Amino acid sequence: MVLYLIGLGLGDAKDITVRGLEIVKRAHKVYLESYTSILQDTRKEMEELYGREVIEADRLFIEQKCEAMLDEALTHEIAVLVVGDVFCATTHCDLNIRAIQKNVQVVSIHNAGIMTAVGCCGLSLYNFGLTVSIPFFTEKWRPYSFYERMKTNMAAGMHTLCLLDIKVKEQSMENLIKGRLIFEPPRFMTVNQAIQQLLSLEEEKKMDVFHPSTFCIGLARVGCPTQRIVAGKASDLLRVDFGGPLHSLIVPCLKTVTEEENIMIQHFAVKESDLVLEKEEDKKEDD
Amino acid sequence: MVLYLIGLGLGDAKDITVRGLEIVKRAHKVYLESYTSILQDTRKEMEELYGREVIEADRLFIEQKCEAMLDEALTHEIAVLVVGDVFCATTHCDLNIRAIQKNVQVVSIHNAGIMTAVGCCGLSLYNFGLTVSIPFFTEKWRPYSFYERMKTNMAAGMHTLCLLDIKVKEQSMENLIKGRLIFEPPRFMTVNQAIQQLLSLEEEKKMDVFHPSTFCIGLARVGCPTQRIVAGKASDLLRVDFGGPLHSLIVPCLKTVTEEENIMIQHFAVKESDLVLEKEEDKKEDD
Repeated sequence: MVLYLIGLGLGDAKDITVRGLEIVKRAHKVYLESYTSILQDTRKEMEELYGREVIEADRLFIEQKCEAMLDEALTHEIAVLVVGDVFCATTHCDLNIRAIQKNVQVVSIHNAGIMTAVGCCGLSLYNFGLTVSIPFFTEKWRPYSFYERMKTNMAAGMHTLCLLDIKVKEQSMENLIKGRLIFEPPRFMTVNQAIQQLLSLEEEKKMDVFHPSTFCIGLARVGCPTQRIVAGKASDLLRVDFGGPLHSLIVPCLKTVTEEENIMIQHFAVKESDLVLEKEEDKKEDD
Repeated sequence: MVLYLIGLGLGDAKDITVRGLEIVKRAHKVYLESYTSILQDTRKEMEELYGREVIEADRLFIEQKCEAMLDEALTHEIAVLVVGDVFCATTHCDLNIRAIQKNVQVVSIHNAGIMTAVGCCGLSLYNFGLTVSIPFFTEKWRPYSFYERMKTNMAAGMHTLCLLDIKVKEQSMENLIKGRLIFEPPRFMTVNQAIQQLLSLEEEKKMDVFHPSTFCIGLARVGCPTQRIVAGKASDLLRVDFGGPLHSLIVPCLKTVTEEENIMIQHFAVKESDLVLEKEEDKKEDD
């Protein structure tokens, strides 16, 4: 039959499309992909609105039981719910490929994705370059290919959208080795953490890409009623409390910003009253 | 009160979100922005599904009566339906700015936009550069800034999404001068026309961007049940009949295409049986 990849959009359970909801109601089984993003709603609320059991498909599921799910889709209508749009995360693209290679018919029900929803900040979606993902650094792992991509964008006069890391259902190294299914609490990178990592990379690599004076735009919970957008120097945004996840960061190329773009950015300009967190320098003095 | 900008997605009336539909049902008035895109559905079908009158807001409306609509939104809940996502077209961004300048509260209900939905062709959305719009050329008007943007993308190793021109409710020069509200039939640029224009630009400008041998991907009716995607050399795609609107064209940067991207592209590779239209050379011989 069919594997439906159904985008859920960015807010809560009600952001599913009418067409998507129809399929969810009639499908043989409904899975929720749950490790590349979060929905501002719980699975329970979804089950209530949809009137269906929603099976959580976490990382382990996708890695270990995905084939069984694809086999089911050969003879039944199977729905896989994914947060945002279907193709915004690499995982879903992989699932799409695996399904096609198994001759499973795949139908995508598109929805809002962060890559177009960020248009709400006023920058034209036509003027963005490569999208980058910023991962949580560890002591030993500090990749910087995303920083090179930012530099490429900037040199070409393009804005950069930075998607920030999400760690859901991660096991500690110890639990992983011992095979214990104990998971760390979920972590979502904040705008502040992203800026700190970018500044530390600049200090290390001296690539002249991102400085405390770099103008950028922090976005939190895009598409939700509590959405927050603040634009300003990196050093100022470090002092803004953006609240709960998910966060994204945009580094616009100011050389190519148009007049219309600028009107909207000014609308979101950081205000003195936004600067609620301690200054980095003050923190160091306290230490 | 509130001006709701509600994305309709890419297919038909059922691609509205559950949240969007709730607002449409209760809003004081519902407008449909109708000149930057088309929905594969008519206003009538929308009115049936939504159980509401839907007022068409064409170019003349937006230019002449927009202020009145914004004034209404100061005291009522007003919904403006836009095809695709809210921020994919410049018009809606303008509307957003005008509303904000009038102190009208704006709430966006996001939906699928072509810029993320094109992920269905298998190319990673992370690897696209600037999006370009290809306008219908006239005898005297042959802009080429979009061709320079394609060159910029290619040089930086990025894919290019080309959105193709739509002419809805256009007046002929004669009717415009005489002030007659007689409109030309709507026109939607096909993949074939876009390729022809690109080839003619290359012939004229010699910028080494787009040739008959350039690999590209034609997409028609993305997000609709009749969606069609064909990948191949420009000269081959010229001979493919993509059917009804809307069409888009992607020019991938082959240097940076990943293995996973390639698997999907091959899945859409042009077949001998797709080549139904006459060859350009044959046409000329016939003349």
